[in-house]
Amino acid sequence: MSHNTFGHLFRVTTWGESHGPALGCVVDGCPPGIRFKLSDIQDDLDRRRPGQSRFVTQRREPDQVRILSGVVSDPDDEEILITTGTPVSMMIENVDQRSKDYGEIARQYRPGHADYAYDMKYGIREYRGGGRSSARETAARVAAGALARKVVPGVVVRGALVSIGVKDIDRANWDWDYIGDENNPFFTPDPKSVPVFEEYLDGLRKAGSSIGAVIEIVAENVPAGLGAPLYAKLDQEIASNLMSINAVKGVEIGDGFATARMTGEENADEMRMGNDGKPLFLSNHAGGVLGGISTGQPVIARFAVKPTSSILTPRQSIDVDGNPVDVRTKGRHDPCVGIRAVPIGEAMVSCAIADHYLRHRGQTGRIG
Amino acid sequence: MSHNTFGHLFRVTTWGESHGPALGCVVDGCPPGIRFKLSDIQDDLDRRRPGQSRFVTQRREPDQVRILSGVVSDPDDEEILITTGTPVSMMIENVDQRSKDYGEIARQYRPGHADYAYDMKYGIREYRGGGRSSARETAARVAAGALARKVVPGVVVRGALVSIGVKDIDRANWDWDYIGDENNPFFTPDPKSVPVFEEYLDGLRKAGSSIGAVIEIVAENVPAGLGAPLYAKLDQEIASNLMSINAVKGVEIGDGFATARMTGEENADEMRMGNDGKPLFLSNHAGGVLGGISTGQPVIARFAVKPTSSILTPRQSIDVDGNPVDVRTKGRHDPCVGIRAVPIGEAMVSCAIADHYLRHRGQTGRIG
Amino acid sequence: MSHNTFGHLFRVTTWGESHGPALGCVVDGCPPGIRFKLSDIQDDLDRRRPGQSRFVTQRREPDQVRILSGVVSDPDDEEILITTGTPVSMMIENVDQRSKDYGEIARQYRPGHADYAYDMKYGIREYRGGGRSSARETAARVAAGALARKVVPGVVVRGALVSIGVKDIDRANWDWDYIGDENNPFFTPDPKSVPVFEEYLDGLRKAGSSIGAVIEIVAENVPAGLGAPLYAKLDQEIASNLMSINAVKGVEIGDGFATARMTGEENADEMRMGNDGKPLFLSNHAGGVLGGISTGQPVIARFAVKPTSSILTPRQSIDVDGNPVDVRTKGRHDPCVGIRAVPIGEAMVSCAIADHYLRHRGQTGRIG
Amino acid sequence: MSHNTFGHLFRVTTWGESHGPALGCVVDGCPPGIRFKLSDIQDDLDRRRPGQSRFVTQRREPDQVRILSGVVSDPDDEEILITTGTPVSMMIENVDQRSKDYGEIARQYRPGHADYAYDMKYGIREYRGGGRSSARETAARVAAGALARKVVPGVVVRGALVSIGVKDIDRANWDWDYIGDENNPFFTPDPKSVPVFEEYLDGLRKAGSSIGAVIEIVAENVPAGLGAPLYAKLDQEIASNLMSINAVKGVEIGDGFATARMTGEENADEMRMGNDGKPLFLSNHAGGVLGGISTGQPVIARFAVKPTSSILTPRQSIDVDGNPVDVRTKGRHDPCVGIRAVPIGEAMVSCAIADHYLRHRGQTGRIG
Repeated sequence: MSHNTFGHLFRVTTWGESHGPALGCVVDGCPPGIRFKLSDIQDDLDRRRPGQSRFVTQRREPDQVRILSGVVSDPDDEEILITTGTPVSMMIENVDQRSKDYGEIARQYRPGHADYAYDMKYGIREYRGGGRSSARETAARVAAGALARKVVPGVVVRGALVSIGVKDIDRANWDWDYIGDENNPFFTPDPKSVPVFEEYLDGLRKAGSSIGAVIEIVAENVPAGLGAPLYAKLDQEIASNLMSINAVKGVEIGDGFATARMTGEENADEMRMGNDGKPLFLSNHAGGVLGGISTGQPVIARFAVKPTSSILTPRQSIDVDGNPVDVRTKGRHDPCVGIRAVPIGEAMVSCAIADHYLRHRGQTGRIG
Repeated sequence: MSHNTFGHLFRVTTWGESHGPALGCVVDGCPPGIRFKLSDIQDDLDRRRPGQSRFVTQRREPDQVRILSGVVSDPDDEEILITTGTPVSMMIENVDQRSKDYGEIARQYRPGHADYAYDMKYGIREYRGGGRSSARETAARVAAGALARKVVPGVVVRGALVSIGVKDIDRANWDWDYIGDENNPFFTPDPKSVPVFEEYLDGLRKAGSSIGAVIEIVAENVPAGLGAPLYAKLDQEIASNLMSINAVKGVEIGDGFATARMTGEENADEMRMGNDGKPLFLSNHAGGVLGGISTGQPVIARFAVKPTSSILTPRQSIDVDGNPVDVRTKGRHDPCVGIRAVPIGEAMVSCAIADHYLRHRGQTGRIG
Repeated sequence: MSHNTFGHLFRVTTWGESHGPALGCVVDGCPPGIRFKLSDIQDDLDRRRPGQSRFVTQRREPDQVRILSGVVSDPDDEEILITTGTPVSMMIENVDQRSKDYGEIARQYRPGHADYAYDMKYGIREYRGGGRSSARETAARVAAGALARKVVPGVVVRGALVSIGVKDIDRANWDWDYIGDENNPFFTPDPKSVPVFEEYLDGLRKAGSSIGAVIEIVAENVPAGLGAPLYAKLDQEIASNLMSINAVKGVEIGDGFATARMTGEENADEMRMGNDGKPLFLSNHAGGVLGGISTGQPVIARFAVKPTSSILTPRQSIDVDGNPVDVRTKGRHDPCVGIRAVPIGEAMVSCAIADHYLRHRGQTGRIG
Repeated sequence: MSHNTFGHLFRVTTWGESHGPALGCVVDGCPPGIRFKLSDIQDDLDRRRPGQSRFVTQRREPDQVRILSGVVSDPDDEEILITTGTPVSMMIENVDQRSKDYGEIARQYRPGHADYAYDMKYGIREYRGGGRSSARETAARVAAGALARKVVPGVVVRGALVSIGVKDIDRANWDWDYIGDENNPFFTPDPKSVPVFEEYLDGLRKAGSSIGAVIEIVAENVPAGLGAPLYAKLDQEIASNLMSINAVKGVEIGDGFATARMTGEENADEMRMGNDGKPLFLSNHAGGVLGGISTGQPVIARFAVKPTSSILTPRQSIDVDGNPVDVRTKGRHDPCVGIRAVPIGEAMVSCAIADHYLRHRGQTGRIG
């Protein structure tokens, strides 16, 4: 990626910190004539918003998005916005910048945080609220992703949390509809996992600890032919987009790391002709991507989110002068930042697919 | 990535297919004044070269690299080449293009191969030897990586195979020096793993089967400060570079997917001041990257290589007209393509580090 | 350029239309630690602002810039802003969106305007105020350029209007200080040209006509070594940046088109050693750039701005249905849009130099 | 541009110096299925080739192009090559590297040459034959352009030399067919200009002098809608591509600098509906581009080539130690490098149009 811009034809540039006046993104290269409502963007933002259960940070942010450019209203229905093909600028103001004493943190390197690395890179550091690394920055991604979803006709991108720490869902119970259920604070597709996760997280939260998670994203109705054999592989760009999210430490496509333990016989997805005139794959170990190019099967990616290092237990570290200190992070923090990563992952996969759809159309003229 | 070019300041463009006259790369943006020998490039290529044991394809390619531009000879020592700062073009001719009957493969979609996806993308397909997806393409990456190694003073990038299929090495036996041992056909750092791997692979080879593998890359002496908090994270670009390799289905940094099962206490790398005036990290769960920026610790990445789909066992598929066929792949194939991926992974990590070293110097002026 | 983003390390993305709520830019890749005041940005914007004389459009826009990210205040002096190295987002709200009847224009293709071309490209058109092509968009460029000026120590970038229509300044009267004089509405460096321009423009304005202009930009104290021999030539990027401005139809460097009429003897800038240990060039036909690389001499560029096509005289055209119409443009328009192009040209040249300064430092480590 | 790569979807990377073993380019992103003959490429190269008259350098280079990747042969006609959509690598070997004594030039800064600028940039310099700045490099551009011509159906890109020094052609005599005439060593469209140019150039050549030139490129049948309102304007990218050529100091589109002297009435191209259902423009001051977007009219660009600084008359300069020297350039040189710039300009305009055709198709899906 080139700095804070990603995508080649569907290009997203994001900006903003946790403690500045606002954050946002510019989506450049969006096709003209795409029709949507502001609520399409807002709904996705609301899914990512903090403060909705005791398992996520209690920071209160309305996360109201404003669209500043690149659209006109439909004269027949003011609610319908239509892209003009010029840059779409979206902005979300920061409201809840609760002031607190950052005195110590300004001079300490918190273990597991980027404090020391920032100082080595920039020699200056916005320590308030994590600066650029704040989870708030992901709102800009979600806004861009909401627009990206509109680019490829028929595509559906959904995500699910599949494990928290050592607790895994049972895939036999997978129910996409349950993810949006109001009693489901975890984006889990397995109703039976909720009490398990609740008990597990309550324990961690009370101990001032934190835990990692794994999220799975599934994109359906992706046309065959997107991507490239090498270097601009669809799965590579999805991996890159997901790895660009703060706290993500691993990504896999389809059966991913498990394929390293498989034989060629086990891994190859056999084909037959389907009744609809399209090939029918008898399995999907490949996660919808062969040789870097989509096959028309669902595209499947998973990513690992590490536990936040903002914990109450004191940890050994040093300050900016090299003195030994014990660091203990107070304040509002998610015990499992991975939970809210589900809509973020969906957004990043949506952007990768939209970009490759336009690139494929540009190079080959074979769709659209 | 932008098509077949990767890197932002240290930029590599690769080209070539298995069955054309040659393949190669153009390295653009290389700093001027870098001194090296042709044998530095050739040595890395020789490590990747096929035909060196019964566990890799028997295709015989000398893989002699020619440098066509971007260097001058040192007037005092003709063997020393010096980069001029202009594009370095490197070419490797294809020699062993054994002719065979590709008649069937031209019309069949091999399961697990990119055949169908290629046709969906391009409507035309170079089926001979895998076309652009051929493992031969990786020679260009290795050549570029050999030059990248010279960019950052002191950096050392090494790789090791850590598992083949269900057989893992014992990390207690890790010996970097053993990897280059002439009796070690596996790039394994564990001498005791060799007979285990041999027996395992002989069985698979005789059955005409194939198997996946996991490779680990470690980069030492990477300066602190390389990368960015988001979008151009050092770990993200490493992941992207590794995922751009054919057959790679997963990537992780540091403890990777295991961090999803950890608490914040377990995962945070504590710090103390070292005797050399630099911070001392008490562990390296982060794999040398915090918040997307290098910390000075060793940078660690792992990637999963799927088993090749070129197997003798017949698999169900269809041909280009949709007729059902049984596909059985004859010819020269690696039973475990992951073995030769070790020098390729090293090259891709080296390129990512070189690029970010120059980018960091450009933006901040803080090194070099 | 890649869509609405320009620059490789110092990257500017702009967004916004004339009749939306705001416009702005994101400056990404700015070095950390750059100190400036908001008034540094505002002062440049004020120079570009309309409504300051009868020779420019009477649209009233305060053009107040807000900085939304990428900076912190100096704790010792709140007025001083310091870049953090993360994206700097700047926004300017549109205030004076005077409503008028665009009914006809929405359906007519104005000759010399981009109306028809827009419809061919996008199939949808924001016709109000020129949409994306509005001169207001250039405010975002000026804001970015004001920051770019701070990147290269000591560099000074100034512009001057050197002709309006058939009226040229007398270079013998060149006085840089006069350009900012409050009695000088033309950015002309020649005090004697003012009454000439006034009379000339008054005549054109009363006739509802318009006229073109030529602007010259001079950048002093540009370090030697910026640029590249080919493809990323400093003069090429300056030309590209200037040509990206609306209504610019030609660019030249140094003696430009006049060199096509010169002999090698006339054109070559001879050199001697200066007293300061640096080479002394005896002339500057090259405009400070040789072989695409800066020499340390002043960098000189000129660009031609065509007359606006918004004129009162009816012109033949067609409407969206192909019917013949006579188009006459009412409303507020600059008789000579070239006048206000002076600070815009300065900004675009400043951005090109800042970008190449960082690129040069990145590749070679030879400055900074 | 990003280093030695240009274009966004149709991307060209060039490499090579005058005195290395070869030079070439990689064309990435070319649509699959484009059919051409090797002779299509070779014919364009032959037009650029030196040694064809006494008015161009006598260096003898066959300039035989080899295509190393990215194509397959048509099974029904081996002469027909078909692009596969993967990178097309083209190489031209250097043959006539006549050895001579470069001793002095290695230590002298030739006035008007890039010698000093190179040393400031790189600290190392390939002085033989101009290194990367050699006119030979343009062969790679011509090869890429020959492929670009095939991308947009029906497009025709032609160039003409319109002035040498102070001698202009008479546009009333314009005859495209005459440009390829075997008795026309100048790419002039005006048969009557040949004896004038001959006499003028013979005088300059005998005096060991050199002279500049202006070239005009006209692209016909360019679809309406290519480009963008700002930043990726079609005319801007054409200007950037032309300015990337060595020795080019100015570019203009349509009436270019002359528009700065025009009124809005004179400059606006009026429209009527044509008989073919397409708009008919009554003039083409705009050069086929309005608001950065093609209108369907012929796209017209002109560029100024400065005189080469390789002249026999001694000029004052300094050597690398700062000592005063008189420099006199011996060897084979074109008295007017602008003559051979005609096919180069055609190539660069062809590449810009091909790139924007694919970008337009990608973003809007409106053509192809």
